[in-house]
Amino acid sequence: MHMQLGMIGLGRMGANMAERLVRGGHTVVGFDPSPEARGLASSKGISPAASLAELIDRLPAPRVLWLMVPAGKIVDDTLAELLPLLSRDDVVVDGGNSFYKDTMRRGQMLAEQGVHYVDCGTSGGVWGLAEGYSLMIGGETTAVERLRPIFATLAPAPDRGWGRVGPGGAGHFTKMVHNGIEYGLMQAYAEGFAIMQHKTDFALDLHQVAEIWREGSVVRSWLLDLTADALGKNPKLAGIAPYVEDSGEGRWTAAEAIDLNVSAPVITLSLLERLRSRDGDSFADKLLAAMRNEFGGHKIKAE
Amino acid sequence: MHMQLGMIGLGRMGANMAERLVRGGHTVVGFDPSPEARGLASSKGISPAASLAELIDRLPAPRVLWLMVPAGKIVDDTLAELLPLLSRDDVVVDGGNSFYKDTMRRGQMLAEQGVHYVDCGTSGGVWGLAEGYSLMIGGETTAVERLRPIFATLAPAPDRGWGRVGPGGAGHFTKMVHNGIEYGLMQAYAEGFAIMQHKTDFALDLHQVAEIWREGSVVRSWLLDLTADALGKNPKLAGIAPYVEDSGEGRWTAAEAIDLNVSAPVITLSLLERLRSRDGDSFADKLLAAMRNEFGGHKIKAE
Amino acid sequence: MHMQLGMIGLGRMGANMAERLVRGGHTVVGFDPSPEARGLASSKGISPAASLAELIDRLPAPRVLWLMVPAGKIVDDTLAELLPLLSRDDVVVDGGNSFYKDTMRRGQMLAEQGVHYVDCGTSGGVWGLAEGYSLMIGGETTAVERLRPIFATLAPAPDRGWGRVGPGGAGHFTKMVHNGIEYGLMQAYAEGFAIMQHKTDFALDLHQVAEIWREGSVVRSWLLDLTADALGKNPKLAGIAPYVEDSGEGRWTAAEAIDLNVSAPVITLSLLERLRSRDGDSFADKLLAAMRNEFGGHKIKAE
Amino acid sequence: MHMQLGMIGLGRMGANMAERLVRGGHTVVGFDPSPEARGLASSKGISPAASLAELIDRLPAPRVLWLMVPAGKIVDDTLAELLPLLSRDDVVVDGGNSFYKDTMRRGQMLAEQGVHYVDCGTSGGVWGLAEGYSLMIGGETTAVERLRPIFATLAPAPDRGWGRVGPGGAGHFTKMVHNGIEYGLMQAYAEGFAIMQHKTDFALDLHQVAEIWREGSVVRSWLLDLTADALGKNPKLAGIAPYVEDSGEGRWTAAEAIDLNVSAPVITLSLLERLRSRDGDSFADKLLAAMRNEFGGHKIKAE
Repeated sequence: MHMQLGMIGLGRMGANMAERLVRGGHTVVGFDPSPEARGLASSKGISPAASLAELIDRLPAPRVLWLMVPAGKIVDDTLAELLPLLSRDDVVVDGGNSFYKDTMRRGQMLAEQGVHYVDCGTSGGVWGLAEGYSLMIGGETTAVERLRPIFATLAPAPDRGWGRVGPGGAGHFTKMVHNGIEYGLMQAYAEGFAIMQHKTDFALDLHQVAEIWREGSVVRSWLLDLTADALGKNPKLAGIAPYVEDSGEGRWTAAEAIDLNVSAPVITLSLLERLRSRDGDSFADKLLAAMRNEFGGHKIKAE
Repeated sequence: MHMQLGMIGLGRMGANMAERLVRGGHTVVGFDPSPEARGLASSKGISPAASLAELIDRLPAPRVLWLMVPAGKIVDDTLAELLPLLSRDDVVVDGGNSFYKDTMRRGQMLAEQGVHYVDCGTSGGVWGLAEGYSLMIGGETTAVERLRPIFATLAPAPDRGWGRVGPGGAGHFTKMVHNGIEYGLMQAYAEGFAIMQHKTDFALDLHQVAEIWREGSVVRSWLLDLTADALGKNPKLAGIAPYVEDSGEGRWTAAEAIDLNVSAPVITLSLLERLRSRDGDSFADKLLAAMRNEFGGHKIKAE
Repeated sequence: MHMQLGMIGLGRMGANMAERLVRGGHTVVGFDPSPEARGLASSKGISPAASLAELIDRLPAPRVLWLMVPAGKIVDDTLAELLPLLSRDDVVVDGGNSFYKDTMRRGQMLAEQGVHYVDCGTSGGVWGLAEGYSLMIGGETTAVERLRPIFATLAPAPDRGWGRVGPGGAGHFTKMVHNGIEYGLMQAYAEGFAIMQHKTDFALDLHQVAEIWREGSVVRSWLLDLTADALGKNPKLAGIAPYVEDSGEGRWTAAEAIDLNVSAPVITLSLLERLRSRDGDSFADKLLAAMRNEFGGHKIKAE
Repeated sequence: MHMQLGMIGLGRMGANMAERLVRGGHTVVGFDPSPEARGLASSKGISPAASLAELIDRLPAPRVLWLMVPAGKIVDDTLAELLPLLSRDDVVVDGGNSFYKDTMRRGQMLAEQGVHYVDCGTSGGVWGLAEGYSLMIGGETTAVERLRPIFATLAPAPDRGWGRVGPGGAGHFTKMVHNGIEYGLMQAYAEGFAIMQHKTDFALDLHQVAEIWREGSVVRSWLLDLTADALGKNPKLAGIAPYVEDSGEGRWTAAEAIDLNVSAPVITLSLLERLRSRDGDSFADKLLAAMRNEFGGHKIKAE
């Protein structure tokens, strides 16, 4: 069954997901404040709307609206603008990386207007367009069921790689934990390759090692595939600064684990290592050097 | 090209590897001190030898001998027994999890007798028989090349999943780091699932979540496949003690990282968490409780 | 100069602080909902009030009120009850372990009524009565200055061990970090003693070692003094469960560090170790055991 | 009772300890290969010897020789040179930071010649001259007892701050753990002060905070005294590079904990943080940035 859907936010993720839906036979009206983004979307079969109001107008009730905007205030702002335009029984999906407690609050707010709110944690990155997205979905069963054709198209296969995991918020919660795990996996690989890179007397070819591991080893994974790819293109990682960003989800996972009294040292430290990578002038390390000088007369390295 | 090979050690790993070689058309003579192991091997097309001497006798020079015995003293003992029986230009492969510095020492010892020593880090576990093994190989190029038909059969594909990564010891070094990464990956998943398991109000079905992630997500991997499998069979992990063994390789990786001045916190902590899982009566925690009582009068929980 | 002060909360900390003030010549009216607490306080020269209203009545304006109640809702409830009874220019001190952002919010609320709010992070535990408290104070300079005689009496010495560290909230922030450091220090000692306890062939007398270190060593500290004391009384820590509570401040420090983009691995892990000590049935460890069984056929220990 | 002692190694630690012994009335003959070191020692009442042979000649048998040289090969070399010169029943003390397993090996070697070997872990740094040293001693009881007057003078008080903690090696083992704890304590303070330094809106005066904590707080310690001193002299730690050396003892403690199956995450991470401080070009962090770019198209920061 083919559906009509309004995609709000046509950035990299939103545009790709809309395109995958169009390829799957669905009709997608898309809105983005950027004319360029709308133009690009249009070239891929997404019908652009010049405003949220126009987008709403062009969809038959009960509508399906998919938000693919950055987490935080912009979600609240968009919902505030949308809400007066919506009708009872419309469904709004938040496919972004919202904090699950925000999602629960928003769901309650929309429910008071008779509008359904579904949270869809979405994994797959830039590869999702071709390979499909892994979708962790929270919300009322009936609302989720209504969107089944959408999820079946977005996922890697109609009956695999997606599912309703629980009530409103459960999808974003699960995606949050997914990202926490992702931090830990990435850090484990990064440390292992760094150890090998420092073993200079063996002159290991890190790209070769990654390729060997891709086949048959216990550590084979999609992240390893990407690592092999990155090392193939740039074996010494030349020109790349040792500077690692983090998004909110790693932080939330670390905090949530503590709230739940779960010790998650590896996920937590993976986050802290990213913070550390961005602090080239560590006050803690300076103080350690100063202390060593105080008690032992050990030399301080000048800045 | 089919080869003849002597497999020394017919435990789970050795027997499986020998069987994969036999299936691939090679001739394998196998030795194990256990008559049962020899009998089982025999039923799979491996020709059993009753002693190391017999095994050597039945192979044409220059011979290929593959050790698949537990790391440590037993490798040294086996080499001591083998060495007088070997001829110049024979090749001995250590396919087990030996410490790479032991391997380097042994390689030097054999080289003095004109015998080649090749180290082959082997990953794949019980699945290797069917899927092939990931092989990280160290040693002289000519010796490794001579064994090419063997590696091509053991690996998942003739030209993928195996390679000579460096001189003697480099194979075991690479395998050691592989296992360190494995610890980190496993711990990251374990923590993530534990966080979800503690979020009782969402009543997440952890097996379902694992299955969703297997398709299209950033965290998809072979270890996740196995996790999904384990959770499918036993969703609450009932009857499983929270007790995790470690083998030497995690310890060596942690120590090696420090020797190389590489900070590898996630790999290291993954090891420490395993130690912690086996210490149900932590003296450190008792002392913390005692200290809290001393300074703040906080109650101590009785044992 | 001697002052009059109302102490609200006569638990262990509040009663001790009030007693130290009385010993220092100040007049203290105290309130606690528990008649037993009021009775005990009375025996120590604290004049008990049967209600907050009575306590307010018996103090001359502008009043000084010191809250020593558990952090959280009870502070808000107490302030809600107090506020209608207060006069312009009264000062309320929160001497407890409140979260500094709550303190900032409360300070703003009180300021709207012309009431000053001062936050006083208080360290010293049960020893403070005899040795004096370390006081980290936040709030307007004039309000803090007005209370100088109080702080001078509570501190170990009139001019040492206390100070205004910044605006409202800064005192509780500083105390929060103090407690985070405390977690790290405690964990470092606990680990060290645990290592020695496991080195059974040396049969070290841990109490003796602690006593040696108390004199002249780099690790000497008050916490070590307490550790020596605890080990002197109970060298094997017999009967003490390996179960460590945490209060909010360690959690807040870990979260705050992340918010400030500071990597604080030791403080953070010290908290996680406490969570771990209370999770005797770790799901993460069970899953690790299950995974090892899946890929390597490694035996699972039965529960 | 006053004794005669030969001090071998007149660097900062050796010269200070010899000076404290001279001040205490003992007679010290000192050797160091550096003429400058001998000259400086001479000015402090230490009688310089131009060679090990001369030093041995000038001491009455049974002799007491105190090694205060860097850990490692130099200890073995010195013992090799000393041994032919020594007589049955002489005592050699290693007061340096030797690895305890080396000490056990050396003790056995000397015992075969009838020479006693005593290991003395020494803490106190440059402050020991004035305040006395904390001494953790391993070796035979009779040999340790013979040196009682020496230990009583070196320690902060004749009967406190020193003790025989066990057989040969136990002193160095205990000192090793002491240093491991020291790493953890230092890191805990460093992190706490870094958190406060990043809380720029409170503009905390870190020196003031340290001074407040020195009196009455739970975190008061000698290391905090030194921290306060360092911050008093250089509040912003200007000109100090965030670069922290480590000596062998932290590494040994981390490794030893693992060997004993003790999880010591805080001590271990404190070491790793020091390694990290010296790796300004982290390959792990570069790889993380490269991976993020691969799966999510996230921008890489150029080097």
